[in-house]
Amino acid sequence: MKMLEQGLSKKKIEEILDKKLAKDYKYTSGSILGSMCTIPHKFAQKIFCKYMHKNLGDPGLFPETAKLEEQTVDEIGELFGGTGIVGSFTTGGSEANLIAMRIARDRRPDIKHPEVVVPLSAHMSFDKSADLLGIKLRKARLKNNFELDIDHFKSLINENTCGVVGIAGTTSLGLVDPIEKIGKMVTDTDIFFHVDAAFGGFVLPFLPQLGYSIPQWDFAVEQVDSITADPHKMGLNVIPSGGIFIKSENIIQKLGFEIPYLAGGNFKHLHIVGTRPGGTVVSFWALMKYLGNKGFRDIIHNCMKNTHYLSKQINKIDGVKLAAEPLMNILGITTESGESICELDKMLRKHDWMLGKFEEFNLIRIVIMPHVKQSHLENFVRDLEIVVKDIGLN
Amino acid sequence: MKMLEQGLSKKKIEEILDKKLAKDYKYTSGSILGSMCTIPHKFAQKIFCKYMHKNLGDPGLFPETAKLEEQTVDEIGELFGGTGIVGSFTTGGSEANLIAMRIARDRRPDIKHPEVVVPLSAHMSFDKSADLLGIKLRKARLKNNFELDIDHFKSLINENTCGVVGIAGTTSLGLVDPIEKIGKMVTDTDIFFHVDAAFGGFVLPFLPQLGYSIPQWDFAVEQVDSITADPHKMGLNVIPSGGIFIKSENIIQKLGFEIPYLAGGNFKHLHIVGTRPGGTVVSFWALMKYLGNKGFRDIIHNCMKNTHYLSKQINKIDGVKLAAEPLMNILGITTESGESICELDKMLRKHDWMLGKFEEFNLIRIVIMPHVKQSHLENFVRDLEIVVKDIGLN
Repeated sequence: MKMLEQGLSKKKIEEILDKKLAKDYKYTSGSILGSMCTIPHKFAQKIFCKYMHKNLGDPGLFPETAKLEEQTVDEIGELFGGTGIVGSFTTGGSEANLIAMRIARDRRPDIKHPEVVVPLSAHMSFDKSADLLGIKLRKARLKNNFELDIDHFKSLINENTCGVVGIAGTTSLGLVDPIEKIGKMVTDTDIFFHVDAAFGGFVLPFLPQLGYSIPQWDFAVEQVDSITADPHKMGLNVIPSGGIFIKSENIIQKLGFEIPYLAGGNFKHLHIVGTRPGGTVVSFWALMKYLGNKGFRDIIHNCMKNTHYLSKQINKIDGVKLAAEPLMNILGITTESGESICELDKMLRKHDWMLGKFEEFNLIRIVIMPHVKQSHLENFVRDLEIVVKDIGLN
Repeated sequence: MKMLEQGLSKKKIEEILDKKLAKDYKYTSGSILGSMCTIPHKFAQKIFCKYMHKNLGDPGLFPETAKLEEQTVDEIGELFGGTGIVGSFTTGGSEANLIAMRIARDRRPDIKHPEVVVPLSAHMSFDKSADLLGIKLRKARLKNNFELDIDHFKSLINENTCGVVGIAGTTSLGLVDPIEKIGKMVTDTDIFFHVDAAFGGFVLPFLPQLGYSIPQWDFAVEQVDSITADPHKMGLNVIPSGGIFIKSENIIQKLGFEIPYLAGGNFKHLHIVGTRPGGTVVSFWALMKYLGNKGFRDIIHNCMKNTHYLSKQINKIDGVKLAAEPLMNILGITTESGESICELDKMLRKHDWMLGKFEEFNLIRIVIMPHVKQSHLENFVRDLEIVVKDIGLN
């Protein structure tokens, strides 16, 4: 299609867009049950819109925004059981995990064929990163209950291992790996220990406050070197915003890319991207101040309530069951018989339920985001019962 | 710093932010002369704010936004002299260049030690990409006039070369490499040819319409396989938005990452990121429709007018000169004597001029973005004269 010579009016364009985009799914419709993203918080939206021009790729131009990032990283670091944590916002968990994997590789130039050990439940971004970085990914098996087979994990560590990864909130089920046990495996070694809490980072800190007992997963485990956590997932911040949180400046001192020509002066980038949104940093700073600990806790409380509601309903339906007891606001549904969930997924999708299919683990994932209401779940349970009957699972 | 237990009021937070961020530099103040980013167009801002929740990392949820992306890529492809161009928006030029470099490497698994030939003027993102991908970067010299030494470039191509890169709008001076000549070097080879037009992509197409004669740089050169162009630079779109434009689906068919578990269904990612802004796609679609060819041309016209104004003024000042005749809205200032520009840069920075320092090429870069007005340049020239005198360059 050729570009128009003369532009259209704003009004006309907005009308076209309204029509064109009408068939996109809407978080508010109640049919999106399988997404880890949601509508950003209204206040975060407002603040972002005010500061969207800020470019942290050239921090000398926006020194106060850069300071705000430091403060926010520090505050999040403390939420994650650390002190003096450094790092920065990223475009999301994938960039954050890539940065961590690069650190793991580049800290060990002595290893010619670097390997990183991850659980089989690790996010796709580790496959992407390994592909980019020329790292061999060693994937540790899961046990039947989807927990990490820690003995197998340990057996994969060898003299080529430059990094190990634990997941605090797996993509498929929201489970937390035994971070303390992995930590012990790397004590007194030069192996970098990264925790991927892209989703869990803004859920787990609030669970103990709500009376849930959860395993240690953060900087409180002293061997943990870095953590990924995404403000644009459960932090309700504007897309794109991830975060990489690093235990100490020493770790990255020699690993940045020097950028000498910026308008703001000389700077070192740890990032893959050059131009880098500052608006999402300001909006998340503002959101943390607005919600406070209590605000986030209330949101998680509500998500967990809905999670328990759905758990109970699923337990009542013959033919399907929970893949695991949910630890956070993620649920896995599988068949009681062990039959493939593919048909179930297909039929539910026909009923317009947008879910996550994990064929490898034979489960359908539901993420109980803040946009998911109990009424949506009631509708879903009704359809689930019908579909289970229709395809003869019960 | 610890997170607040109870949040503050929105009003209070906005007050704090206004105060805190007051010392960030402002594009409108007229002192930012060295940035390739600017204030996004107001209409793009408005549209983005309406659609910021859209996540193209899960395109099945937003199929109409995904279609809009296809259309926009197609339209930009045509602007770049191609037909049936595929590709997508990225988080910026660095991710786009990384994707291109990965394609170059992965299309040639037969090469054990892959090399890519780039001009010495290539952007930092090629160094980053090469570091990540384990590619050896071969940098071709520039001639004294900052043009690519094409013979040296050719001499660096060997049996390990999986890719070559030409720049259409160098970071330092906005020059365009001899894309046709590079194209001829890779005719009938399996070497991938990528053009980095991150900045130039939304300048060059409009220059011939304004009567400027420019070298061929785009898909009109038949050997060009892919182009990087950033909507968030001269496209005036919201940060972060880059773009990777690829000549044919065949090139990438085997190179994506399969993501099976998305709420929207099965999809293949070419990207490094997972969650991916859809709002910037919608806003740029809208901006292209709003400005049309004429709107962009008028903006470029104005930038070029200011560029010529500044060129003339610099030519009048004894002690400094243009590093090269500007081809687009980027100017390089160097010393007539060949003396280092470091002191000049330092003194100008003391006068609060935010410029780009390219020590390697001994030049100070000025980017005449749409936020730069002639009055800003008048002020700058006045200070430049003073500083040149003060440090005895004349």
